[in-house]
Amino acid sequence: MYALMQRLFPIYRSLTGNGVRETLRILGERIPIQHLEVPSGTQVFDWTIPQEWNIRDAYIATADGTRVVDFRQNTLHVVGYSQPVDGWFTLEQLQPHLYSLEKQPDAIPYVTSYYSPRWGFCLTHRQREGLQPGTYRVVIDSALSAGSLTYGELLLPGESSREIFLSTNICHPSMANNELSGPVILTELAQWLMSRPRRYSYRLIFIPETIGSLTYLSRNLAVMQERVIAGFTLSCLGDERLYSCVSSPYADTLADRIARHVLAHQEGETRIHSFLERGSDERQYCSPGVDLPVVALCRSRFGNYPEYHTSLDNLDLVTPAGLTGGYRYVQRCIEGLETNRLYQSTRIGEPQLGKYGLYPTLHLKQNQFSMPTVRNLLVYANGRNDLLSIAERIGEPIWNVHAWARRLLELGLLREITPDV
Amino acid sequence: MYALMQRLFPIYRSLTGNGVRETLRILGERIPIQHLEVPSGTQVFDWTIPQEWNIRDAYIATADGTRVVDFRQNTLHVVGYSQPVDGWFTLEQLQPHLYSLEKQPDAIPYVTSYYSPRWGFCLTHRQREGLQPGTYRVVIDSALSAGSLTYGELLLPGESSREIFLSTNICHPSMANNELSGPVILTELAQWLMSRPRRYSYRLIFIPETIGSLTYLSRNLAVMQERVIAGFTLSCLGDERLYSCVSSPYADTLADRIARHVLAHQEGETRIHSFLERGSDERQYCSPGVDLPVVALCRSRFGNYPEYHTSLDNLDLVTPAGLTGGYRYVQRCIEGLETNRLYQSTRIGEPQLGKYGLYPTLHLKQNQFSMPTVRNLLVYANGRNDLLSIAERIGEPIWNVHAWARRLLELGLLREITPDV
Amino acid sequence: MYALMQRLFPIYRSLTGNGVRETLRILGERIPIQHLEVPSGTQVFDWTIPQEWNIRDAYIATADGTRVVDFRQNTLHVVGYSQPVDGWFTLEQLQPHLYSLEKQPDAIPYVTSYYSPRWGFCLTHRQREGLQPGTYRVVIDSALSAGSLTYGELLLPGESSREIFLSTNICHPSMANNELSGPVILTELAQWLMSRPRRYSYRLIFIPETIGSLTYLSRNLAVMQERVIAGFTLSCLGDERLYSCVSSPYADTLADRIARHVLAHQEGETRIHSFLERGSDERQYCSPGVDLPVVALCRSRFGNYPEYHTSLDNLDLVTPAGLTGGYRYVQRCIEGLETNRLYQSTRIGEPQLGKYGLYPTLHLKQNQFSMPTVRNLLVYANGRNDLLSIAERIGEPIWNVHAWARRLLELGLLREITPDV
Repeated sequence: MYALMQRLFPIYRSLTGNGVRETLRILGERIPIQHLEVPSGTQVFDWTIPQEWNIRDAYIATADGTRVVDFRQNTLHVVGYSQPVDGWFTLEQLQPHLYSLEKQPDAIPYVTSYYSPRWGFCLTHRQREGLQPGTYRVVIDSALSAGSLTYGELLLPGESSREIFLSTNICHPSMANNELSGPVILTELAQWLMSRPRRYSYRLIFIPETIGSLTYLSRNLAVMQERVIAGFTLSCLGDERLYSCVSSPYADTLADRIARHVLAHQEGETRIHSFLERGSDERQYCSPGVDLPVVALCRSRFGNYPEYHTSLDNLDLVTPAGLTGGYRYVQRCIEGLETNRLYQSTRIGEPQLGKYGLYPTLHLKQNQFSMPTVRNLLVYANGRNDLLSIAERIGEPIWNVHAWARRLLELGLLREITPDV
Repeated sequence: MYALMQRLFPIYRSLTGNGVRETLRILGERIPIQHLEVPSGTQVFDWTIPQEWNIRDAYIATADGTRVVDFRQNTLHVVGYSQPVDGWFTLEQLQPHLYSLEKQPDAIPYVTSYYSPRWGFCLTHRQREGLQPGTYRVVIDSALSAGSLTYGELLLPGESSREIFLSTNICHPSMANNELSGPVILTELAQWLMSRPRRYSYRLIFIPETIGSLTYLSRNLAVMQERVIAGFTLSCLGDERLYSCVSSPYADTLADRIARHVLAHQEGETRIHSFLERGSDERQYCSPGVDLPVVALCRSRFGNYPEYHTSLDNLDLVTPAGLTGGYRYVQRCIEGLETNRLYQSTRIGEPQLGKYGLYPTLHLKQNQFSMPTVRNLLVYANGRNDLLSIAERIGEPIWNVHAWARRLLELGLLREITPDV
Repeated sequence: MYALMQRLFPIYRSLTGNGVRETLRILGERIPIQHLEVPSGTQVFDWTIPQEWNIRDAYIATADGTRVVDFRQNTLHVVGYSQPVDGWFTLEQLQPHLYSLEKQPDAIPYVTSYYSPRWGFCLTHRQREGLQPGTYRVVIDSALSAGSLTYGELLLPGESSREIFLSTNICHPSMANNELSGPVILTELAQWLMSRPRRYSYRLIFIPETIGSLTYLSRNLAVMQERVIAGFTLSCLGDERLYSCVSSPYADTLADRIARHVLAHQEGETRIHSFLERGSDERQYCSPGVDLPVVALCRSRFGNYPEYHTSLDNLDLVTPAGLTGGYRYVQRCIEGLETNRLYQSTRIGEPQLGKYGLYPTLHLKQNQFSMPTVRNLLVYANGRNDLLSIAERIGEPIWNVHAWARRLLELGLLREITPDV
């Protein structure tokens, strides 16, 4: 995953344009993503897909031609969706078009203006303070034109037509945690999902934030409302700090339940954010009239780490270990849902566990309370408690309880119940 | 309000009698209160309206005619509903008829005996200890006779026939917080309510405690059960200490919800009492078979402040600022109910707030989480959450959320939902 | 109760056999227990009733005939259900058949092997370490043969056919808290129940643990599911430490409610265990498909006190005061259920309590909040809250609230409601 991220990092992505297409093409080397293009100007609920934006070069140069701010050095230097410009400006004239962070003087901020025509440059505060009075050549060689919004989709059918939905963003330029960790982990998850039998069907999308999710919803809402039982937005999953989630509006969906459960059994610091702290596409998926059961899975949540939305969100912040942890976190949520079945004890009263080799036949004081998972599972497996609720009741991770459920199923001590849906 | 209270303070009020009528007459100069009279002897549920009681004078005088305890000095000096008496008593014979508070030696206690024939005097403990052995002339020039119980009612129709019910007491003699703060604030609220369009209808009553509320219920119960959506008893609202409420029996009514909400956003110390700590007419309104959704609104609750039911509950304890605070507290509860409507977002997904001037069009790291109230309101406005529940979820006072709801309604981003009732 | 326990203590009980019969016979001197016998080999759900086991003698003797471990000294010395054996063994050959507790070197452990053929001796660790190398005569004069499992039942009819179920064990050899405290207290409770009118019917059983409860369920499940409204297993009730209960699986039955209530008003330390900490026959009564509303009542719960399942669980650990406390604990649970009726206030609004002598007729500041139980009971007695829920709401023991309910019933201020069941 880290190598893939290294390859994707230099590509300049924005809400639309060739960087998005190139990114999807590279991911497509690993998984069969379908590319979709939606024309500029298309009405999407309250929004309109903006013109497609592409950029070749952008810089601020001194009179002698020295580039003091150069898009080729760092893609964050230009304000996303900047209008083209080519001219000479005094430093004073230039200032309203410059963005820097006084409190993070070595970070280039990430700034965009998708829906209001502007042009501008982002630079470190130190760079900005080093600019000498004088006249500068300012060039943004960008083009806004009728084109399309690009996104990728991968549908993986399973035993059931009910779906698990996974969504991530591909609209951020050279930043690692927010947002390359998302598509890189989702690609790895897709490969894993493709390699195994699937109980549920999977809907994976790689989209630009906000307008992308709204566009996707405008075309798929009815089928998603019918099929999706749980969904996750994957964002900021590659650092080595905590694990967190952003709950759905009422924190009561299956997605919330499994995310909270996995976090409860996750090593290290974890945090559960309320929906009031949302910030990514869960804003759309959970809005009234959409009402999908979606939570956001993050390590350090967007906005909660200092490097967020700056050039410091780079390949040092994200690590191979961080990505692996983020991948395992999402995977455990998916595995949890795949294994979350209904079981019913086949015996009235406790089975005689000793005869199945599941309990000591010699009754010593010391083994009075042995085999608690097996015994507790049998007691709560009444055909109505799903495995997740049993795991929560008995305080153990669902992966442990699942392993015992399969063993008891083999022994005939449990049977699986198919709910009437 | 304070000036009105100063005018009402010297009037001698009791459960029945001319003091009640005079009090209602004075309030009637400001608001069109209807006076009602219910004859003595009328059966009211488990109670009977007692004879009407009036008093002209009462005193204890020494042999030389010096009044050592004098009703004209302080109306609290006589036990309410005292039988008439005129005779000579030794100090020893007098003692069983005297009431004082050893622990508050400078306070005249407030004592009544409405339903059991007695006579007596209340005095400070210091006064009592100063009484010399000897013979005293004792006079209570009172009269118990067939008459009536008097109360006042004001009905203010609104858009809807559903009602908000407000009740306060006018049976207490010269005490300021308990109880003149109640009728004075209710009169001011009535003037405010009369001056504005009303969504709900209002039922305001000024009654003697217990027997008055029972009498009122005996004549209006069915219509109140049908119409009242929330009610409040107003009591002890004029001091400058905390703000509090006494919950309904199960603390689950609309009146409880709004009172708790207003208290949660009230500056200073607040307290929520359970129904086990009730003491005023909510005892009747919330009894089984009545079951009205009523809570008591107080500043320092009856029984919770040392001056309670003594001559120290006077015009020093109650202040203009205290009354204004009490008035605002009740007014906010009413405003909260008036504004507690159902709204539904008109857009699927988030609206593009930037185009309505509700969100910055330039995306900087710093403004990721700006405009939280607007964004949260839009997300929870699903046509089922009332505004109060939205305000609670997002942790803001309903008056803020209401202001934004009206703005979004104007912009067409919300619509109002009329529930099927 | 203590004297009865002294008499029962030396009798050798096991899962089956004559010790059980003798125990039931002695209890039968006090209460008319019906003895039932179920043949060996009978299939009971997932289990089979084992052969009947009886024992006459067992010892380990040195070459000169000195008994170094002697069943006649302490019945715990032999592993329960040991196969017969008679032979000479070296110490080394003997070791795998010896059980002792290194951490409790003066305690003989209690060990059984009901369902797997073994033989063995239990001894103190100190005894074991004193055994010299050499050859020992080993005798277990036991017999396993077709016979039956024995249990006792006592059905006490009441006004209603709905039942309270009480269960205890009679399969433990010479141990006092676990398990003689159970049958001794249940016998005393039976005498008390027989001496009084009963609202509910009672089902009392004295059974061997696990196989006994399963056997009983296999013969009575349908009728119990129809009739039992609450049940209790009585175990470990004779020490002087805390009071505790083991909740039912969802801690939501009437049995849970009353046990928690009694514990909340119990003096001294108390503990509520979850069903995850179960260990006695509640394991069967609460299993899926059985689903009886049963909780376990204990003083120091099985497994929670150091003497548990050793020879230290003796007549020193259990005391007359300990037994009396345990008896009162269970009795209060039963009394609570017997008194847990539905009442409804007969008045609208508060009754005029003064005229019934239930409230002072003189209104002093000091008596504003007097008679809280009466007033609170009248307010919550709405015909739907049972007395237990009223007691919980008002924070008083049900026995106090019950006494007032009867008084108010006599005065005609409450009426009893018969629920439609």
